[in-house]
Amino acid sequence: MSTTENDAVIETSGTHAITIVRDFDHPVALVFRAMTEPDLIAQWIGPKYLTNVEVTHDARHGGTWTLVQRDPDGNEHAFRGVMHGEQTPELSQRTFEWLGLPGHVSFETLRLEDLGGGRTRAHQVAVFTSPQDRDGMLASGMATGVNEGFERMDDLLRSL
Amino acid sequence: MSTTENDAVIETSGTHAITIVRDFDHPVALVFRAMTEPDLIAQWIGPKYLTNVEVTHDARHGGTWTLVQRDPDGNEHAFRGVMHGEQTPELSQRTFEWLGLPGHVSFETLRLEDLGGGRTRAHQVAVFTSPQDRDGMLASGMATGVNEGFERMDDLLRSL
Repeated sequence: MSTTENDAVIETSGTHAITIVRDFDHPVALVFRAMTEPDLIAQWIGPKYLTNVEVTHDARHGGTWTLVQRDPDGNEHAFRGVMHGEQTPELSQRTFEWLGLPGHVSFETLRLEDLGGGRTRAHQVAVFTSPQDRDGMLASGMATGVNEGFERMDDLLRSL
Repeated sequence: MSTTENDAVIETSGTHAITIVRDFDHPVALVFRAMTEPDLIAQWIGPKYLTNVEVTHDARHGGTWTLVQRDPDGNEHAFRGVMHGEQTPELSQRTFEWLGLPGHVSFETLRLEDLGGGRTRAHQVAVFTSPQDRDGMLASGMATGVNEGFERMDDLLRSL
């Protein structure tokens, strides 16, 4: 994992949660676009060695999202979830499941905070159904995927 | 709260979760029907002093559910959520939100275990985004609603 000054702060909270805090040098509206428009999501999400080959994002209450990533050997990794409530910059909530381990679903809450001066702080909380699921996510290399993804998102934001 | 020998075992798990275990003297298929058919749900869910005036339950991935309860003074209490994955007796997963405290959403997993002899054990785990949300749910009188509801469900199951 490449380490930069702007790596996300990824911490555990209690027994069931992971919290992620990460700053972006762009306004809330732009960060929200990058996180919700499928064509933009496909350009940054996940670790660098994976290619995003399918991204859907229906931001309505009950809408679904999907993500399919392909590795250099041609293997595909699929994720899915559903949206709870309208997805807004102030509050976006959804479920998350990696179909390689079906039934082990987490619930994510994302808040985008306006830091002023055109800067944004993303606050994310993911809660898991068991401490084992939480620890399994941490052990999966999540931090690399999160940070490499956010670095690519920085590049994308500069280009928008 | 009325206490009976068959009260649910309601416990906290770690910092973010509530677990509920409760046995029913009826087969899995019948318990699942009572938990998923809106006309049946309306006959048992919640504490006895509330009347269920609206129940919807769309069991598909991304389907929504709603519940509106009316108290003796005519005040209405509304709840909603979305389904994650197909809802089956082996695994039903959904989000839960009381619209009186919007944005404080929990994620519920329900498994119905066949105990043999036509009996069923329900295992439920609810995880909350913060320990404060979890403790707020416990303080809300949840146990009374859960147990009075399950007693009414026992009566309903006998009648089906």
